[in-house]
Amino acid sequence: MRGPLTLAEIVAHLGGRLVGNPSTQIHQVGSLQHATAEQITFLASHRHRSALRATRAGAIVIAPQAQELTGIPRIVSDNPYLYFARVAQLLNPAAPPEAGIDPSARAAASAQVASDARIEAGAVIGDGASIGARAWIGAGCYVGADSVVGQDSRLHPSVVIYHGCRIGARSIIHSGAVIGADGFGLANDAGRWVKIPQIGGVLIGDDVEIGANTTVDRGTVDDTVIEDGVKLDNQIQIGHNVRVGAHTAIAGCVGIAGSASIGRHCMIGGAAMIAGHLRIVDHVTISGGTLVSRSILKPGTYTGVFPFDDNATWLQNAAHVRQLAKLAERIRALEKRLEGKEQE
Amino acid sequence: MRGPLTLAEIVAHLGGRLVGNPSTQIHQVGSLQHATAEQITFLASHRHRSALRATRAGAIVIAPQAQELTGIPRIVSDNPYLYFARVAQLLNPAAPPEAGIDPSARAAASAQVASDARIEAGAVIGDGASIGARAWIGAGCYVGADSVVGQDSRLHPSVVIYHGCRIGARSIIHSGAVIGADGFGLANDAGRWVKIPQIGGVLIGDDVEIGANTTVDRGTVDDTVIEDGVKLDNQIQIGHNVRVGAHTAIAGCVGIAGSASIGRHCMIGGAAMIAGHLRIVDHVTISGGTLVSRSILKPGTYTGVFPFDDNATWLQNAAHVRQLAKLAERIRALEKRLEGKEQE
Amino acid sequence: MRGPLTLAEIVAHLGGRLVGNPSTQIHQVGSLQHATAEQITFLASHRHRSALRATRAGAIVIAPQAQELTGIPRIVSDNPYLYFARVAQLLNPAAPPEAGIDPSARAAASAQVASDARIEAGAVIGDGASIGARAWIGAGCYVGADSVVGQDSRLHPSVVIYHGCRIGARSIIHSGAVIGADGFGLANDAGRWVKIPQIGGVLIGDDVEIGANTTVDRGTVDDTVIEDGVKLDNQIQIGHNVRVGAHTAIAGCVGIAGSASIGRHCMIGGAAMIAGHLRIVDHVTISGGTLVSRSILKPGTYTGVFPFDDNATWLQNAAHVRQLAKLAERIRALEKRLEGKEQE
Repeated sequence: MRGPLTLAEIVAHLGGRLVGNPSTQIHQVGSLQHATAEQITFLASHRHRSALRATRAGAIVIAPQAQELTGIPRIVSDNPYLYFARVAQLLNPAAPPEAGIDPSARAAASAQVASDARIEAGAVIGDGASIGARAWIGAGCYVGADSVVGQDSRLHPSVVIYHGCRIGARSIIHSGAVIGADGFGLANDAGRWVKIPQIGGVLIGDDVEIGANTTVDRGTVDDTVIEDGVKLDNQIQIGHNVRVGAHTAIAGCVGIAGSASIGRHCMIGGAAMIAGHLRIVDHVTISGGTLVSRSILKPGTYTGVFPFDDNATWLQNAAHVRQLAKLAERIRALEKRLEGKEQE
Repeated sequence: MRGPLTLAEIVAHLGGRLVGNPSTQIHQVGSLQHATAEQITFLASHRHRSALRATRAGAIVIAPQAQELTGIPRIVSDNPYLYFARVAQLLNPAAPPEAGIDPSARAAASAQVASDARIEAGAVIGDGASIGARAWIGAGCYVGADSVVGQDSRLHPSVVIYHGCRIGARSIIHSGAVIGADGFGLANDAGRWVKIPQIGGVLIGDDVEIGANTTVDRGTVDDTVIEDGVKLDNQIQIGHNVRVGAHTAIAGCVGIAGSASIGRHCMIGGAAMIAGHLRIVDHVTISGGTLVSRSILKPGTYTGVFPFDDNATWLQNAAHVRQLAKLAERIRALEKRLEGKEQE
Repeated sequence: MRGPLTLAEIVAHLGGRLVGNPSTQIHQVGSLQHATAEQITFLASHRHRSALRATRAGAIVIAPQAQELTGIPRIVSDNPYLYFARVAQLLNPAAPPEAGIDPSARAAASAQVASDARIEAGAVIGDGASIGARAWIGAGCYVGADSVVGQDSRLHPSVVIYHGCRIGARSIIHSGAVIGADGFGLANDAGRWVKIPQIGGVLIGDDVEIGANTTVDRGTVDDTVIEDGVKLDNQIQIGHNVRVGAHTAIAGCVGIAGSASIGRHCMIGGAAMIAGHLRIVDHVTISGGTLVSRSILKPGTYTGVFPFDDNATWLQNAAHVRQLAKLAERIRALEKRLEGKEQE
């Protein structure tokens, strides 16, 4: 389905309570600031009240407690952001791929490519690889030997999947992502590094999204695993033997070192770093920029970031950070001296 | 223009005051350490005095206050580093592309490619895309449907531009950069993530440079914007709906989360991280490694980095960081006790 | 050589003391948890004792002090991890490339490609470039003009080597890596950035491994240098003019700013950041996440990371970090006051 839709049609599809003219025609979603009369927007937070007053949107998705703040046609929903996501999907359905293999693409004779899959210019499909129904392999992608791309999955241009990796159904991988490169497995022999062959694979579930230039290394002997519904932003590094639990979302620039195990329904903020060989249970939130150096066995929110300041103030405080153990000693000494005086 | 040039010719082009033989022939720029008699180098700082004494360069660009430190032919300039940049440009002019579309490249019939543009092997130009005069699209690049690459811009090999993005004139994008991938827009529905279609684009101005493997996400509904003259180093992540103001320079490995707005003429140090939905005004400098978690509304330099130390010292101090609130309480208690004693 | 091998054959090749049936047939390496009766595993640490009891592996590599913990056939070695690496190499020898240039690859007429090298689909080899004996250039790779790839080196798909760079022998470069992009060299001219042409190259030694999506910038005038035996993980950024000493290993997401010089046999943990123009001597270990802001002239381990905590505790402590200078003042005041009282 593609727009325009009337507000009545939208509510018929997605629920919510409609206030205002049900025949209002909606062509697209828009932002509070720039939506036109043919667009629907949403109010996520009371912070945007002044933008609400100025909006020229044709309709708005709004929470019950805010519905009286505007007179424009509105859909009242308990979760305006989620509702907006659904409307945006309704008005912008993912285009199904035009089937066919571009003449400049190269699929190995032993590869299995579904008849309704799409393989774009310059893509390479290796020996024994399998491309599922309606899968879409973008220009210049590489799918290594014996790897599998599940049905309805999409690889944007220039994705590399090494050999022996499996991508589930309905997953999306953005450009520049590299799945299945060798993990960083090295043993030290008198100062020289000896490479440990990385013979595991990568197992990626259904409904996963992987951002641009993100890397997921293959396992040393077992597989690296990204479970169903995981969402990875751009430029994330996932080390070998890592497991990321279902429906966990990880923001950009995060690094997860080898053999770490992340639970389900976790949220990891941008640029956080997770050390190797540790475990994080389900429902843990890690604040952006935090370095997690030991296991987290209790759900909750965890943080470890040096608070920023103007440079002069930071310089003063940072100098004392480096003297903290001595400051603590001076406090202890004061306590003792005062105790002595009090006992006089 | 390409070398050799005499010092007289250089000064005729770029100004500066010449001391020494004006016919000295200069073929190339060089470093203080390795420049030969046919090369010109520069002295940026008094710290390099000993290297200055040892240099075998044929000429040097030098500040007025340092001009007596050497006897070799020299150009005296108030800003030797900038002057050196200009000399290097003079001796190494960007080669204009050899026009033409490689037979292995694929430009859609509806794409507009300027007759003097260059499209290298394996590149793909999508439906309705436009490649400006003297633009240079490297091997294996992808320019999506309806995207625009402005005149005299250059995409090095393996750059991906998604659909509906605009690159201005004279911009340079290095290999592996991905412009216009979907932003990380997700709404949560009872533990499952619902994708918000990203229908905005990316707008990149004139004279912008974007480093290798840097990613700039498309906007959710409005555009992500990189204004004129912005310089982005490698492996930077720019989230959806971000705006980076004109002439701001951002060093490698920086992440800028969604909807952040960065001012003009800012400098952001390597590996700094900027949280989402905040504003940084013009002329702000962020030190490398700093996590900026709230808006910065006053020009200046800002820092937040844990000072490093030998591991044993760090361990001691870090343990006290985790007890700081308790230390502060003990100080308060001491103050009270002492007050009590003083009032006796 | 490829499996199966008997334990006797393995010990004949690699040494170690065999306990148990020498004719045990080994097909592959495996993990303690999932190895089958045809696989050999290893015990790296006493922490895994319970997994040892449960293992179904056919054999194990084990340290002398742990050899009595199990009854399965075992090879006793002082360094089980290193031994395991050697066994894994023995059972998984790197396949030599099938020689030949794919018809869709494009090698310039002036390029030199060894007759036993392999150039895969869509790869581009520039003017005057040289590809050594048994080198393997993956699909969609780009090797710029006058660049050299040494014998037995392998570029996985979608690697970009700019012009004028040299890769030594037996080196491995993973997908998405970019070698030789322009360094971030800019001079400021009244608020506008002037690009300094980057005319140096990149020199990469023998036996180097470079991870997926890692970037190594070319030098400004001299070369950026990665010495023999260096191992770089994924998504590392190496700035222009950097030198990384032989046999140094650097984990994922590390950034090294321009002109930094790193010693030999160093280990740099994930997401550490090294500022520019500094020197780190040989045999230095940097903990993950540490920002190194000044030279390190003494071997040892260095750390600087804000310890993470549950968010509420962190908030309390972080607030005091920003008041540390004032806390220190209060301690000083207390000391004075107490001194005053003591002198009464």
